[in-house]
Amino acid sequence: MIVVMRRGASEEQVQAVVEKVKELGFRSHLSVGEERTIIGVIGDERRVSEGVFRVMEGVEKVVRILHPFKLASRDFHPHDTIVPINGVSIGDRPVVLMAGPCAVESREQLLETALAVKEAGVHILRAGAFKPRTSPYSFQGLGEKGLELLAEVKEETGLAVITEVMAPEQVPLVAQCADILQVGTRNMQNYNLLHAVGESGKPVLLKRGMMSTMEELLMSAEYILSHGNYRVMLCERGIRTFEPYTRNTLDISAVPVLKQLTHLPVIVDPSHAAGNWEWVTPLSMAAVAAGADGLLVEVHPHPDKALSDGPQSLRPERFKELVEKVRAVAQAVGRSL
Amino acid sequence: MIVVMRRGASEEQVQAVVEKVKELGFRSHLSVGEERTIIGVIGDERRVSEGVFRVMEGVEKVVRILHPFKLASRDFHPHDTIVPINGVSIGDRPVVLMAGPCAVESREQLLETALAVKEAGVHILRAGAFKPRTSPYSFQGLGEKGLELLAEVKEETGLAVITEVMAPEQVPLVAQCADILQVGTRNMQNYNLLHAVGESGKPVLLKRGMMSTMEELLMSAEYILSHGNYRVMLCERGIRTFEPYTRNTLDISAVPVLKQLTHLPVIVDPSHAAGNWEWVTPLSMAAVAAGADGLLVEVHPHPDKALSDGPQSLRPERFKELVEKVRAVAQAVGRSL
Amino acid sequence: MIVVMRRGASEEQVQAVVEKVKELGFRSHLSVGEERTIIGVIGDERRVSEGVFRVMEGVEKVVRILHPFKLASRDFHPHDTIVPINGVSIGDRPVVLMAGPCAVESREQLLETALAVKEAGVHILRAGAFKPRTSPYSFQGLGEKGLELLAEVKEETGLAVITEVMAPEQVPLVAQCADILQVGTRNMQNYNLLHAVGESGKPVLLKRGMMSTMEELLMSAEYILSHGNYRVMLCERGIRTFEPYTRNTLDISAVPVLKQLTHLPVIVDPSHAAGNWEWVTPLSMAAVAAGADGLLVEVHPHPDKALSDGPQSLRPERFKELVEKVRAVAQAVGRSL
Amino acid sequence: MIVVMRRGASEEQVQAVVEKVKELGFRSHLSVGEERTIIGVIGDERRVSEGVFRVMEGVEKVVRILHPFKLASRDFHPHDTIVPINGVSIGDRPVVLMAGPCAVESREQLLETALAVKEAGVHILRAGAFKPRTSPYSFQGLGEKGLELLAEVKEETGLAVITEVMAPEQVPLVAQCADILQVGTRNMQNYNLLHAVGESGKPVLLKRGMMSTMEELLMSAEYILSHGNYRVMLCERGIRTFEPYTRNTLDISAVPVLKQLTHLPVIVDPSHAAGNWEWVTPLSMAAVAAGADGLLVEVHPHPDKALSDGPQSLRPERFKELVEKVRAVAQAVGRSL
Repeated sequence: MIVVMRRGASEEQVQAVVEKVKELGFRSHLSVGEERTIIGVIGDERRVSEGVFRVMEGVEKVVRILHPFKLASRDFHPHDTIVPINGVSIGDRPVVLMAGPCAVESREQLLETALAVKEAGVHILRAGAFKPRTSPYSFQGLGEKGLELLAEVKEETGLAVITEVMAPEQVPLVAQCADILQVGTRNMQNYNLLHAVGESGKPVLLKRGMMSTMEELLMSAEYILSHGNYRVMLCERGIRTFEPYTRNTLDISAVPVLKQLTHLPVIVDPSHAAGNWEWVTPLSMAAVAAGADGLLVEVHPHPDKALSDGPQSLRPERFKELVEKVRAVAQAVGRSL
Repeated sequence: MIVVMRRGASEEQVQAVVEKVKELGFRSHLSVGEERTIIGVIGDERRVSEGVFRVMEGVEKVVRILHPFKLASRDFHPHDTIVPINGVSIGDRPVVLMAGPCAVESREQLLETALAVKEAGVHILRAGAFKPRTSPYSFQGLGEKGLELLAEVKEETGLAVITEVMAPEQVPLVAQCADILQVGTRNMQNYNLLHAVGESGKPVLLKRGMMSTMEELLMSAEYILSHGNYRVMLCERGIRTFEPYTRNTLDISAVPVLKQLTHLPVIVDPSHAAGNWEWVTPLSMAAVAAGADGLLVEVHPHPDKALSDGPQSLRPERFKELVEKVRAVAQAVGRSL
Repeated sequence: MIVVMRRGASEEQVQAVVEKVKELGFRSHLSVGEERTIIGVIGDERRVSEGVFRVMEGVEKVVRILHPFKLASRDFHPHDTIVPINGVSIGDRPVVLMAGPCAVESREQLLETALAVKEAGVHILRAGAFKPRTSPYSFQGLGEKGLELLAEVKEETGLAVITEVMAPEQVPLVAQCADILQVGTRNMQNYNLLHAVGESGKPVLLKRGMMSTMEELLMSAEYILSHGNYRVMLCERGIRTFEPYTRNTLDISAVPVLKQLTHLPVIVDPSHAAGNWEWVTPLSMAAVAAGADGLLVEVHPHPDKALSDGPQSLRPERFKELVEKVRAVAQAVGRSL
Repeated sequence: MIVVMRRGASEEQVQAVVEKVKELGFRSHLSVGEERTIIGVIGDERRVSEGVFRVMEGVEKVVRILHPFKLASRDFHPHDTIVPINGVSIGDRPVVLMAGPCAVESREQLLETALAVKEAGVHILRAGAFKPRTSPYSFQGLGEKGLELLAEVKEETGLAVITEVMAPEQVPLVAQCADILQVGTRNMQNYNLLHAVGESGKPVLLKRGMMSTMEELLMSAEYILSHGNYRVMLCERGIRTFEPYTRNTLDISAVPVLKQLTHLPVIVDPSHAAGNWEWVTPLSMAAVAAGADGLLVEVHPHPDKALSDGPQSLRPERFKELVEKVRAVAQAVGRSL
């Protein structure tokens, strides 16, 4: 951490910072420049807030030097984390496909979709039983009934299941059926929920908040990892910007940046970013070309009857085309599907 | 709702939309333009998703006409909602001050601050027992112990209390001590929590998500109102933008816009927006000049010892100056303090 | 265009809008809903501002139905525009590479880079003589001297040249040497410049403003097209968001969305988006996988001596690797390099 | 400037940075921490790009310590700059009002507005002859004819005039009539234009780019100041965010932050930020409460006939109310009107 003093800060002010550094158990390092004096704080800065210094008289700003995350960082864990699910290794050479409807709507709808995506080569079925919706007047998901249907279809098809959990008290119930617990974009900083999924020991797919930086995503992962649960996957799903054409702006750069910063697998959800099925296939291809370890894609047999996210859902036959196009890209970048 | 067909959409495609409109129980209204055919959907569009139409063949886009919120809207509730707390009427002529430390840290710290803000004319004490923190390595609040201290200080000073609740299961406990339940910016779309505070029947201060639109804020309020709990206050606390100088960008326009759209009181939190105590006073004055019904301000007797948000906390003597300056502005705009 | 009246708008107010529609030479179409009356405006809405109606008494909002751009739209020009430059057809099956240093710094630097990128298979050399720089204290480009060096190196290598033009009065001079005139991100809405490059008749690469929507980009293209100059290429180069890790956020979705909206070729500049050479190769691969017609990449033989943009410039040997990886992706998506 | 080495950077890499620092004429300062080695660069960092170090092997990041602007900074010019125009001192105790139509449309329209705003107490008339418009199909201003009308109305009313200049070659012409040259939001980084207005020696009102940080605004001011032209006023006019209700988001915090960073006067344009006349008055009051030195407000006698920006223009009688309300706030904060 670097404490930058204001121009003209007094000797006493500088001295007070130096003493504060010592009091907090760090070593200090003074450097007097032409326009500013700066004080280096030596030690593990993660355990102290920059505010401690920023409020002191004569201080202009405080700059952190270290990444605030540790368990998620490649600095301390250089090798890729691999999460095995249902015979596939997420984070390894194969690109993993997770696909299915936005929400569980009925046994028929779920089974039809599951069989279709299975046939297309998918190993992991996605579908929500608990649905966070902006409007209280929208379909809120089937809840426990949805979980039962998921369990049945899982049994019947042999597919693994990823489904969202919205509140700490739902974790035990959802964990019975799900192979992967999904934490949604609106809950990325729901810390009680992060603790609960950390405790569960289950694989977790953590979606980036639509308003969150990559660093904040890694800090939220850190909450889960701090419970000893290392089976965490990060998911880029589009961020909020000023551009209205797409539902959100897929931050494709997050793929190579996160792969550099962290050992955790990086999954891309092109459906929520696009908000429109027509762009899901090119975004899926781009994601794999950029190095994504997997895709989370919305598929619905009858998008015009979908109770949520119909416009961004692919019909099964279009999803098959997506799979073939993604396979070609995966092979071009030295991966398999 | 307006369904816009693509240029060159076929008669069959148009007809299919018209039939879908009828099937959903709406009336339709066809208008054939030079470049596009558009179909008006007549009825309460809030009960249907635009996706239903957007996925249909030949449809280019769907435009909503009505506000998606109803209970929060002035359309159906033209008069200002007034929330009486501890003898002050929030949403009425007086501008209401809520002030105190970011977090409860100790009995001494809390009592010292409470007495100072009371002396400055404040009726409502703010302080967090449960703290949502970006980093798992930061101080996470005193939890239940913090609530006990709040209850003691409330008893001792006669101040009303506003404090944050982070999870549905905490609501009963927090509601014992708090006069106002605060839902934080990261939880604005934590729907399980919104249901729980709605159920509680307690006054709620709902903070705008730092990257949520005003419409989404009103939709989240709608969740609470739909439980019959109308004592809801909205809080603008800064939104996330590309500007790095301030912690967040205070969206001052939200004050007049929200006052026009909704009957609910609008409170401004200048401290989190600024992230720096030096700018809290001018932002407070601006908020009141723009029509805010109240302010939520962080005050700490020793900001350099604060366990969170020190840099944006005002010392009691500076807070007193803020109160005097805000009082002058309040009077200039026909309000009192 | 749709004019939405406020709830409770009077008959007179509705009538006034209807008459205004007629006065402006449009036909109107009235639709009385349960909560709102709406008035359809039939005719080419592009020639009128929505403000004309929005200011009228009783009007709540005005919604445009048509794309505001016409010449750039596929509606009126369904086939891809192809821009032939130096034997390559931009917008056709091959993915076109434009590469070179950020700025012309010296004859040696420019020639060395040009020969390296030519050897790697590039047909178009990029390099700036006039440089828009945030700081007046930064290197501002060699200006006319830079253009002379570009002309020499062009002569010597047979490469075509793309270079930036910053002001209308520079256009004739720059057009002497350049095969493609580049309009930079800060000048996307410099209308005097857009008119000048439109007049010049030269091929133009129009960079998206770093905080401009796709629609605004197409409107700026419309300025150039309106001079009868149809050899316009659009360039996505990253937009400004709240994410600080990358210099800008590459809006990869812009590729498929623009290809759908317009017939103009779409080029991607991964270097300015990333701001860091380490991420340029994966972003280039993603761009081609998403359907980009070309890439604009910064290459410098000695990035540590570069007078601008060193950190995002690739050394020639790394650029060769990029070309090979991009070639594999191009082939996987049915294109060539 | 601080150079942060990667974890595990070699001694040779550290040494290479140290030598580079020396080679560039700075002193270095080495500090070896537990996880990272950092190297302080001592001297005026403004003359060197951080890229020089960032590209070196083993370097993780480079952090600037000093503000990149110098002439605009209070560090080197602590006292407020005051710009006298037509008997009013901008930047001094009085809050200065500039008002008038978006565009000069006709002699009658301009004169009617000028007389109305003069009567309301305004000293400076705003109106555009050259208009930057997103669409080539929109009214583009009267150009030279508009300047002539401005000159006539100026003569007739005795008001000073502020009007926009869009291109370097227009500067001499516009400077004949204008008392203040306005650089618009889309031209904030049109460096050729900044040089030209700097050269002109005329007072300049520099609007913040809708996509620009405060630091970039100050850097653009620096371009003008570097020509010895110190009569520069900064103008906050709203920035682009994700919030669609307002045209732009007025960054009210920019007022106290800029007043702290720079000695230049700070003006607020509430009209373009709001995009809707209904919110212009509360935003004007907020701006003055926050410390703005002046306001730039759009007034039109017949907003429904305005050729641009009608919806955000105030009728003269409403503008008079604005003036009275703003006067009350100005007095409450110790200023006059």
